[in-house]
Amino acid sequence: MSEQRIIRPTPISGFPEWTPEIRSVEQRWLDHIRAGFERYGFGSVETPSVEPLDVLMAKGETSNEVYTLHRLQEDNAADDSEARLGLHFDLTVPFARYAAQHFNELVFPFKRYQIQRVWRGERPQEGRFREFTQCDIDVINPDAVPLHFDAELPQVVHEVLGGLDLPPWTLRLNNRKVLQGVYSGLGVTDPLPVLRAVDKLHKIGADGVRQILVDELGMDTDQARVCLDLAEINGHDTSVVDEVAKLGVSSDLLTEGLDELAFTLDGLRELPTNTVLADLSIARGLDYYTGTVYEATFDEDPGYGSIVAGGRYADLAGSFIRRSLPGVGISIGFTRIFAKLVAEGRVLGGPLSPARVLVVVPSAERRGEARATAARLRARGIATEMYHQADKVKKQVRYASRKGIGHVWFPPFADGHPHEVKDLATGTQKETDPDTWHPTEQ
Amino acid sequence: MSEQRIIRPTPISGFPEWTPEIRSVEQRWLDHIRAGFERYGFGSVETPSVEPLDVLMAKGETSNEVYTLHRLQEDNAADDSEARLGLHFDLTVPFARYAAQHFNELVFPFKRYQIQRVWRGERPQEGRFREFTQCDIDVINPDAVPLHFDAELPQVVHEVLGGLDLPPWTLRLNNRKVLQGVYSGLGVTDPLPVLRAVDKLHKIGADGVRQILVDELGMDTDQARVCLDLAEINGHDTSVVDEVAKLGVSSDLLTEGLDELAFTLDGLRELPTNTVLADLSIARGLDYYTGTVYEATFDEDPGYGSIVAGGRYADLAGSFIRRSLPGVGISIGFTRIFAKLVAEGRVLGGPLSPARVLVVVPSAERRGEARATAARLRARGIATEMYHQADKVKKQVRYASRKGIGHVWFPPFADGHPHEVKDLATGTQKETDPDTWHPTEQ
Repeated sequence: MSEQRIIRPTPISGFPEWTPEIRSVEQRWLDHIRAGFERYGFGSVETPSVEPLDVLMAKGETSNEVYTLHRLQEDNAADDSEARLGLHFDLTVPFARYAAQHFNELVFPFKRYQIQRVWRGERPQEGRFREFTQCDIDVINPDAVPLHFDAELPQVVHEVLGGLDLPPWTLRLNNRKVLQGVYSGLGVTDPLPVLRAVDKLHKIGADGVRQILVDELGMDTDQARVCLDLAEINGHDTSVVDEVAKLGVSSDLLTEGLDELAFTLDGLRELPTNTVLADLSIARGLDYYTGTVYEATFDEDPGYGSIVAGGRYADLAGSFIRRSLPGVGISIGFTRIFAKLVAEGRVLGGPLSPARVLVVVPSAERRGEARATAARLRARGIATEMYHQADKVKKQVRYASRKGIGHVWFPPFADGHPHEVKDLATGTQKETDPDTWHPTEQ
Repeated sequence: MSEQRIIRPTPISGFPEWTPEIRSVEQRWLDHIRAGFERYGFGSVETPSVEPLDVLMAKGETSNEVYTLHRLQEDNAADDSEARLGLHFDLTVPFARYAAQHFNELVFPFKRYQIQRVWRGERPQEGRFREFTQCDIDVINPDAVPLHFDAELPQVVHEVLGGLDLPPWTLRLNNRKVLQGVYSGLGVTDPLPVLRAVDKLHKIGADGVRQILVDELGMDTDQARVCLDLAEINGHDTSVVDEVAKLGVSSDLLTEGLDELAFTLDGLRELPTNTVLADLSIARGLDYYTGTVYEATFDEDPGYGSIVAGGRYADLAGSFIRRSLPGVGISIGFTRIFAKLVAEGRVLGGPLSPARVLVVVPSAERRGEARATAARLRARGIATEMYHQADKVKKQVRYASRKGIGHVWFPPFADGHPHEVKDLATGTQKETDPDTWHPTEQ
C-alpha cells in the first residue's frame, strides 16, 4: 500500500446519501411517483440546476438561502457569464422561467411534472436538508385553468403516495379567497398581513395571533375573534361552508371562495374518507397563491412540517413574460418523507442487485455455455448476472443470496445434461430451459 | 397586467435544457440505458452533488475546473461546514469516496451504475458543457477483479447504445501494460511521460510526438520510432498481438499486457464485426488506468471527442481507505452524445404527453361518467388524460393530436349508449369497453 495521506470520508450534514439497499427503495418510490404522474398525462420537464440570480430573485423576498457558484480558479475569469449563477431552491421558479422562455413551443393546457434535486443553504435540522428531491406537478394555461384541476392534483398525489406504505397523512385544503373574503367583509383593506399572522397559528397559538391582529394590525377584538374563529373551522365535507356562513360576514370574494372550496371538496369525494380535510387555518402565508391551497402533514407528527404543499396562482411567470399564465400546482417533499422513514428504521432495504438470477460458471470449460445462457435470459428481458470469479459453486450461491438475487442458474455441467435453476427462497432446484423460464414473483 | 420589470429569460451557455418533446426522448434514452445496466446486475448508487474540496482534489492534479458553493448571504456564516464544498466534476471520485465510506456495508464484487449530472467550470464549446449527465458502471472488489469484466463492460455499453439509433461508432480498446511494457523493454524507466506524449498523437501528429520523445524525454530516434510504430498498430482481432511482437521488444509486462488484451478482445468476439478495434494508440493519458483502457468516438466525427471512456485501475479508493480496491469501469458521456444529435436535428421529438388516450367530456352532465371511465383506464395501467376545459369536442380532439396522444375516448353521451374510441393515426372510431380496451402500439 502506498504511504499517501488518507482522507477519512465523513457524511456532509444536510446532504443525504443512501447505502445501496436503501437507494434501491428510493429508486422504486421515485419510479412509482413518476408512473403515477404519467398515468394522468403529466409530461417530464427538467431544467438546469442553476438559474441566473436575477431569475431566482425575481419575486423579491425569498426566505430561501441560495447557493451561488464560483470557479475554484477564479483567476480564470475571462468569461464571467457564470458569475451570477445560483442553484435553484425550488422547482417553481425554474418552471416559471421555462414556461416564459419556451412559451411558443408549449401546447396548452401544459401539464408538466418535474422531479429534481433542489438546494438550500439552510442550517440542517430534522426534516430540513441542503440538497433534496422534490416531485412537482403543475397545470398552466393562458388566461384560465379549469377548477377541475384543483381536485385532480391532490387525487394524483393521493394515488402515488398511497402506493408507498406511508404512515397516515392528511391533506388539508383551503381557499385563500375564503380567508381574504372574510377579512375584506370585516373591512380589512390589506388582507396579506392578516393572512400571514393567521398562518402562524400553529406556531404561536391563538393568543399570539390575536396580539398581532390587534396590536400590530389595528383590528378590534371582535374582528380578531372572527379571524380566529374562522381558523378553527375544519371538516371532511362541505358542512364547513355552512360554518363559515355562520360567522355572519359576507363579501363577493367570500362567496366565490366558498363556491370554489365546495367544488374542489366535491371533486375529491372519491378519495378515502378522512384523508382530505377542509381546514380554514391553512394559509401558505409566504407563497403566491390566490385560490386553492394545499398542505399535508403526517398525522402522527404534524410538527415535522408539510410533506406536500401547493395551490393555485393567478400568474406563474409575470416576472418573465407579459402574458397571463395562471395555474395550479402541488409538490411532494420527497426527501423529507423518505429520510424520516429511513431514520426511523421504517424503510425495509431492497435487494442489492436488480438481477433476478445469477448464472454460475461450473468450470472454465463451460464458461461459453454459461455466457450464452445469460445472453438468452437477458434477451428475454430477465436481469441476469454472471459470476466471473473462479469460486466454488457454494460461494457463488452465497453471493446471490447476499445480493438478494432470487435464483441461481446451473448451466449443463456436461454436454447433453439439462439446465437447472434453484429458487433461493424455497430451496427447490429443478430442470429448466432458458427460453421459457420465468423468475417467481418477488 | 402589472407594471413590474420583465426579466427576459435566455439560455445559459453550457447548461443544456430541452423542450418537452426532446426531453421525452432524453428520458426514453436514459430509461433504456438504465434498463440495460440493470439487465447485467448493476445496481444504482447516487451520491450528493457536492463533495468536500479535499475529496475532489485527493488525486492532486485535475484538469477539471471545480465549481465551489457559497451562500448568497455570506454573513450568515455561523455554520461554515459547507465552506469548502464543490460540485463533483465526474462520478468516479464520488464513487471512490462512497466505496471507502460504506466499505463495510457493500457486498463484493460490488457492481454499481450511477447516472447523474456533473459540473465543470469550463469554457463551453462544441461537445463541452458546464452541466451534463454521465452514465457510469464500475465493478470493484478487494484485491482482485476477474478480467472477464473487462469484456463484459463494453458489451453492456454496446447493448445499451445499440438500441438508441446512434450514428456508427467504434470502441477502441488497448491495455496500458502493453504500452508500458514496450517502453520498459526499450529501457525507459518512467513510462508515464511517454504515455502522455503518445496520447497527443491525434492532436499534434507523429512529428510533434517524436519531438517530445526525443527533445524532452531524451529518447534516441530508434526508441521514438518504436513508440510511434506501436501507436500505428490497430485491428479488429488478435492479429494485433503478432504485430506488436514484430516490433522486437520484450518485457514481462508486455507479455502480460498482450495476454490481457487478447483475452479481452476474445471476450468481445460476439459483438458485431468492426465495432471493436484494438488500437495501440489509445492511452487515456491523464487517467489513472493500469490495464485495459477504452475510448469510443463517432466514426463520422472522431474529432468531436470521446463519447465513451474507461478502463481498469489498480486501486480506486487509495486516497480514502487503506484497502486495495481494484476495479474496471466505463462511462457514457450521455449529454455529449445526445446534445450533438439534437443540435444536428437527428433527434425526432417524442410525444408531448405520456398519455395514451384523452377522455373527452361530452357535456357537464356526463362529467361523472367521463371521470369514472378515466379511473377505470388508469386502474388498468393505461395513461389517461382528461380534458377539463368546457370546449367543443373538435377542439378536444385537436388538443390530443397536438400533444401526441394517440386515442380519443368518447364516454356514452347518454345512458344506454356505448363507449367509443377513436384512433387518431387511422381515423377509425368504434365501440369499446374501458375494462378490455388496449391502445395500439405506438
